[in-house]
Amino acid sequence: MITEIAILDVKKGQEKSFENTFKEAQKIISSMNGYISHSLQKCLENNSRYLLRVEWETLEDHTIGFRESSEYKQWKELLHHYYEPFPTVEHYGKNL
Amino acid sequence: MITEIAILDVKKGQEKSFENTFKEAQKIISSMNGYISHSLQKCLENNSRYLLRVEWETLEDHTIGFRESSEYKQWKELLHHYYEPFPTVEHYGKNL
Repeated sequence: MITEIAILDVKKGQEKSFENTFKEAQKIISSMNGYISHSLQKCLENNSRYLLRVEWETLEDHTIGFRESSEYKQWKELLHHYYEPFPTVEHYGKNL
Repeated sequence: MITEIAILDVKKGQEKSFENTFKEAQKIISSMNGYISHSLQKCLENNSRYLLRVEWETLEDHTIGFRESSEYKQWKELLHHYYEPFPTVEHYGKNL
């Protein structure tokens, strides 16, 4: 199991719209092969920042299975225009 | 419940020593009032990077209860010399 982590900075004023759109978009990611669970949490210090965590069975379930899928195109269309700057995504291994 | 998040960049070559020291240091944080759980995960893309997550009952359990305690002095002495740059710590609210 691996954890995908992205700090999402959303354009000012678009926070509520992003949150509502994410409620729809999360159905996409939840349906993918290798998906285990996810969470979206809002930063207490920065009103436009969110932490997205997604647990995947393997790294490739995210980097290939999801990112090269037609579902990813929908995900991008729904969400990517909210981000500024575009987020860096990293992956983390099991709990030490 | 809130989540403390810190991306920890450890000095090159000190990764194993940091991991071993953290095994001791985690006993400190686990004993604090308001502590719920924690995890330390190693980054797959960057060998010197770790993700620390700590769940606390309230923000103040971390920012006051822990950071103003004598136990925090021990935590600092054990761990802070490993970090470069010194990490930014943020807090995130409940799952949206």
